[in-house]
Amino acid sequence: MYDLVIVGAGSGGYEGALYAHRRGMKVALVELSPESVGGNCLNKGCIPSKYMRQGAYLLDKFQNLGEYGILLKGYELSMRKLKEGRERVVRTIRENFKKFAEHIKVPIFYGKGFLKGPNSVVVEPSGQELRAKHILLATGSSTVALGDLLPDGRYIYDTDQIWSLEEFPRRIIVLGGGAVGVEFAYIFRMYGSEVVLVELKDRLLPSPDIPEESSRYLARKLKKLGVDIKLKTTLQEWSTQSEGVRAILSDGSEVTADLILLGVGRKPNTEGIGLEEVGVERDSKGFIEVNQFCQTSVPNIYACGDITSSTMLAHKSMYEAKIAISHMLGEKDMKREERLLPKVIYSAYEIASVGLTEEQAEDEGYEVKVGVVSFVSNPKAMDDGENEGFVRLVADAEGNLLGCHILGPHAGELLHQVMHLMKAGLGLDFLSKALYSHPSLSEAIVQAGMEVHFGPITWARRH
Amino acid sequence: MYDLVIVGAGSGGYEGALYAHRRGMKVALVELSPESVGGNCLNKGCIPSKYMRQGAYLLDKFQNLGEYGILLKGYELSMRKLKEGRERVVRTIRENFKKFAEHIKVPIFYGKGFLKGPNSVVVEPSGQELRAKHILLATGSSTVALGDLLPDGRYIYDTDQIWSLEEFPRRIIVLGGGAVGVEFAYIFRMYGSEVVLVELKDRLLPSPDIPEESSRYLARKLKKLGVDIKLKTTLQEWSTQSEGVRAILSDGSEVTADLILLGVGRKPNTEGIGLEEVGVERDSKGFIEVNQFCQTSVPNIYACGDITSSTMLAHKSMYEAKIAISHMLGEKDMKREERLLPKVIYSAYEIASVGLTEEQAEDEGYEVKVGVVSFVSNPKAMDDGENEGFVRLVADAEGNLLGCHILGPHAGELLHQVMHLMKAGLGLDFLSKALYSHPSLSEAIVQAGMEVHFGPITWARRH
Repeated sequence: MYDLVIVGAGSGGYEGALYAHRRGMKVALVELSPESVGGNCLNKGCIPSKYMRQGAYLLDKFQNLGEYGILLKGYELSMRKLKEGRERVVRTIRENFKKFAEHIKVPIFYGKGFLKGPNSVVVEPSGQELRAKHILLATGSSTVALGDLLPDGRYIYDTDQIWSLEEFPRRIIVLGGGAVGVEFAYIFRMYGSEVVLVELKDRLLPSPDIPEESSRYLARKLKKLGVDIKLKTTLQEWSTQSEGVRAILSDGSEVTADLILLGVGRKPNTEGIGLEEVGVERDSKGFIEVNQFCQTSVPNIYACGDITSSTMLAHKSMYEAKIAISHMLGEKDMKREERLLPKVIYSAYEIASVGLTEEQAEDEGYEVKVGVVSFVSNPKAMDDGENEGFVRLVADAEGNLLGCHILGPHAGELLHQVMHLMKAGLGLDFLSKALYSHPSLSEAIVQAGMEVHFGPITWARRH
Repeated sequence: MYDLVIVGAGSGGYEGALYAHRRGMKVALVELSPESVGGNCLNKGCIPSKYMRQGAYLLDKFQNLGEYGILLKGYELSMRKLKEGRERVVRTIRENFKKFAEHIKVPIFYGKGFLKGPNSVVVEPSGQELRAKHILLATGSSTVALGDLLPDGRYIYDTDQIWSLEEFPRRIIVLGGGAVGVEFAYIFRMYGSEVVLVELKDRLLPSPDIPEESSRYLARKLKKLGVDIKLKTTLQEWSTQSEGVRAILSDGSEVTADLILLGVGRKPNTEGIGLEEVGVERDSKGFIEVNQFCQTSVPNIYACGDITSSTMLAHKSMYEAKIAISHMLGEKDMKREERLLPKVIYSAYEIASVGLTEEQAEDEGYEVKVGVVSFVSNPKAMDDGENEGFVRLVADAEGNLLGCHILGPHAGELLHQVMHLMKAGLGLDFLSKALYSHPSLSEAIVQAGMEVHFGPITWARRH
């Protein structure tokens, strides 16, 4: 009898297993195969894409190397080398985790986990039954096809298949200007591909959680790098031809390319794992219904990550796993707080958001105050040759922080300062008196705090 | 009559002027000349050195470009271009500040500020008198010679003169393995110079505020890059010769080099500014005595920065200026807190410390708990090809954070998360439940929090 059996050893599953082990629980993992340990994020998602994005970022840095007295004589690009490096990192993380699980005696059972009862998971096809006091479902999500665009790994790729490319495409059509689309558009562009980025809506990153300003900055930079951005546009027709695809877009333009990458659409993996059999309820979209402690309709069965809502982020799953486990241990101070979940996009800029945008806050009836400080005059950003972007803070009339939106260097790391403050309920009075090092990018956060707390100083004009 | 006259428009002075303006005060600045606005940090310190350090860092990144499929065909280095870029950044920041001061109507009077009375500053040599309700002294510090090593800008350089170099030295002796010495050793080494780094003590960064582990990591990396580190060593004799200097070190070795750089020694600028005349008291080392609100022995005269203690950091001065001004406004919630001041060193690694080391905490009688998480297995650090270093948290038995020491990528930015928590009095219980994005370097901070809070998970072994 295990204290906890976790179905799925992706981000949520393995973070959960480590956390449960830390907290003294006897825990086991069930995962499809040794090759899928780490899940989508590690094997087909954030980890390999962030590796390639780092290469793209380094190529981007080449543009102003001369200003540091470094004069390049030229360079060549090799997808083979890039792929080798990327696969080495992914493999290292995966094998390290498996070795560590073994070391701390957390067994991983390979196969498909199926709920046989509220205290029983059967591993298929072996049929081995694992008895458990608690069960955590962490089965993740899968890509979905877009209409007749069935990923074939030759003309049409999705984020499961793009990793198999052996050469950089000469030209690529990226469908979808969301987080995935803008990341790959940047990567391929920096590695020399011609990129056509097609987005249905009227802006890139068309999520209500991302301020329009972030979309505008990103579009301007991607265009400057040569990405052909087509907004309010869809793919009307496509056909294969000898050397790739021929596409007709809704604006009437015809584009030929080596391939089409689908940057859209995932569905939760909640079919065929025994939910109905044990009475775990799902909503109309297939997501498992959970309470604020990640508990399903069967009290000792919990769920985390991509299967609990459409916010499909690895760290959401990791955090929900910890919430679930702490609740199993009788604690109630960790709760689902989707508003405090960071969203970080890695493209031509790092774009990080937490909490509400100005528009969302107004819609919720807050009297909104906004402070924006640009990186343009931030000394550290200037030293680093990366002084584009901004810190944007959204607060209410009492000085409570409602949201933070950072675009620029290391935005994804910088955001954590504000995430911690928001979670702790510390507002502008605290932030405007906070210490910072000089020179640092973090200064801009404190300055933005002063902008809202004391009123604008003109220096940091609103954009 | 001004509400505030600030003597010195360096980091503390100009941050203070902006803050006082923000808070509604009528403020004026006194600064030696238009060229010295911004002070040592901007003109001869952190800003130009961080610019060159960024160039060195980019050159460092060249070593594993191949792993990102980027194959360089070679490069050349140009001190002229590096210098141009560096001077452009420094000039831009300086001119922007002057323009902005003009825009918000904060006058800058050029000349030497002399205290004529508790409410009067005379600008020399013009003799113009500025009447002020409050005065903030922010006069900074100056380099001092080391024995007979008088900086001459030909054989012997200090940090005032190093900026005039027109070529990268073939070989350089850096005296002093503190923050300045290790930064320049890295910069010159990456730009191709042979570097001999000489330090009196038995480790680099021999400050009690920096854990020995940080020193060890840095020494190992600098050695790997080819820096010749000589610890427990002093310069015994030196002489000039046709093409540079010939030095005899205390270990008996003879080193010839193009020049010697002094990375040691500064003294506060507290002479000849009228302190005695108005009764502002100094300690035996020449520092102005201030209380926790930066108030001197003359109640309406305040002091900030390099003249208040030997912790000569730009952000210390900036923060103390804000403390002083808020106290002038009748507020008492901002106070000097040297323990919460971050120390950030930029060399072959970023090395950031705040609060106590393990040893310091033990000496103060705490029952100390330490958590260390290495970046070696941090997915974002692996993706970025920079997975060397660690996050080290020092806490007491009740879970209060006493210190944090980070070595690795963007350590100087990451540290701010922990600085905010320490200032807010949030401890391990909070940190171990904090949200983070994945993949991120910041994960390592939360993991270190869990290491201390729940006990080690073996994964993150102590080094």
